Amino acid sequence: MDNLKQFLVALCAATTVGFVSIIFVLRWVLYFKEGLAWDGGLAEFNWHPVLIVIGFIFLQGIAIIVYRLPWTWQCSKLMMKFIHAGLNLTAFVFAVISMVAVFDFHNAANIPNMYSLHSWLGLTAVILYCLQLVLGVGLYLIPITPVSWRAAFMPIHVYSGLLLFTGVIAVALMGITEKLIFGLKDPKYKDSPPEAIFVNVLGLLLVIFGGLILWIATRTSWKRPSDQILHTRHTNGGGEDNSKVGPALSQLSDEAEAGGDVRRRSNKLDDQGN
Amino acid sequence: MDNLKQFLVALCAATTVGFVSIIFVLRWVLYFKEGLAWDGGLAEFNWHPVLIVIGFIFLQGIAIIVYRLPWTWQCSKLMMKFIHAGLNLTAFVFAVISMVAVFDFHNAANIPNMYSLHSWLGLTAVILYCLQLVLGVGLYLIPITPVSWRAAFMPIHVYSGLLLFTGVIAVALMGITEKLIFGLKDPKYKDSPPEAIFVNVLGLLLVIFGGLILWIATRTSWKRPSDQILHTRHTNGGGEDNSKVGPALSQLSDEAEAGGDVRRRSNKLDDQGN
Repeated sequence: MDNLKQFLVALCAATTVGFVSIIFVLRWVLYFKEGLAWDGGLAEFNWHPVLIVIGFIFLQGIAIIVYRLPWTWQCSKLMMKFIHAGLNLTAFVFAVISMVAVFDFHNAANIPNMYSLHSWLGLTAVILYCLQLVLGVGLYLIPITPVSWRAAFMPIHVYSGLLLFTGVIAVALMGITEKLIFGLKDPKYKDSPPEAIFVNVLGLLLVIFGGLILWIATRTSWKRPSDQILHTRHTNGGGEDNSKVGPALSQLSDEAEAGGDVRRRSNKLDDQGN
Repeated sequence: MDNLKQFLVALCAATTVGFVSIIFVLRWVLYFKEGLAWDGGLAEFNWHPVLIVIGFIFLQGIAIIVYRLPWTWQCSKLMMKFIHAGLNLTAFVFAVISMVAVFDFHNAANIPNMYSLHSWLGLTAVILYCLQLVLGVGLYLIPITPVSWRAAFMPIHVYSGLLLFTGVIAVALMGITEKLIFGLKDPKYKDSPPEAIFVNVLGLLLVIFGGLILWIATRTSWKRPSDQILHTRHTNGGGEDNSKVGPALSQLSDEAEAGGDVRRRSNKLDDQGN
């Protein structure tokens, strides 16, 4: 890997900021707010920010960069794909539970659901994330999917993944804004009480975490080496599949899940590469 | 250009959604709100969303993809760099005026400044955008800047540009959320009056506009051809500069502003390419 030291610095920064964000959201709900419970009240609502930050932001971020970790390059690509999918599935489950908590709280308190831009974009993100998961598993983990479909869909898979991750952070920032306006009464948000400053800092941490994950994910020199070998082999090789998918296979980057047919054909080379 | 038809569809979609967003924000302030004026009141505040959508979102988005337009490929790279910088400078001026409008309104109404996460992130975005502009002009428009500096800084320039654009849209969504909560009293935001639905749709439009611009900007096959020629020439050529900056020059993509030294050296080739 080029610039291993720079990669490790970026990775340490991202995980540290991610962990500090989790500590911040826990301190917010446990110290400033009503704690955590499943009682239809404010303590149930509090599961919403906690599960979003831990699952939909931190776990999703780690899922995005998991192929980049050099110490995983000795693992098979298939195992890494399962880890990538597993982390994303966990993030999705966390997001769904966090939404149930909000609907429960709203219904118990007679607050309308789905009126705000935050709720519109949040629900859209969860639905698209589910679609991304289903398509990702269907295309890259089910062995019978044609390799040409995998290659054709890969740029969309990578783009959608990064856009959804960014979108989820934007929706979280809107949620923080809503909660601070509605939740702070005396003193109000505009009076900048300690809770307001503290949660604003949480928002900044989420933005920095997102920026670091996007930086790591978009450096091509930090990609898993087997993908480079895979690319070279396919663009140099013959066969009817290659003639169709050759150029698109350059997209089969670290996030790329070139399982099934591609996997079987390149197993030996991958193993040599690792 | 590969897939010219797809590019044109994406470009038409982006510009259409961008124009519709501008119409929406104008209708919001002129029909639902107090109109536009410079009187320290709510009508002055209304310049804030209008200038942000027109300048900091639409113009910045166009500035990002301006190198991608095939009918500009006959223009010199230097002229395109001036257009790119000019659009970004205009967007920056719009953003600054829009902030002055908010500060004026806050001061006249005795509302504290800079207490919300929206204001923290918004001011940060404007400051970083200014820094990006100054560094961009200093590195890519001033002829004496060493080519090695230009190449080394290019990945950061491209990444920062896209991150700032995305961040500005996120901050706008937070601003919309704030304004709808504070601005709607009877009926309230949670009662979903027509204005709430209308402005929520504006928020969706801004997200779609952002997604389309990011899609166009990140398709390598839609880059300005001269950059490809430039890349080939530098990675194949010799010289002390090339040995240092060869690999990094692959980053000198459409957003790349390889002016000055690079420009002078590759003028002939560029002209042939165009």
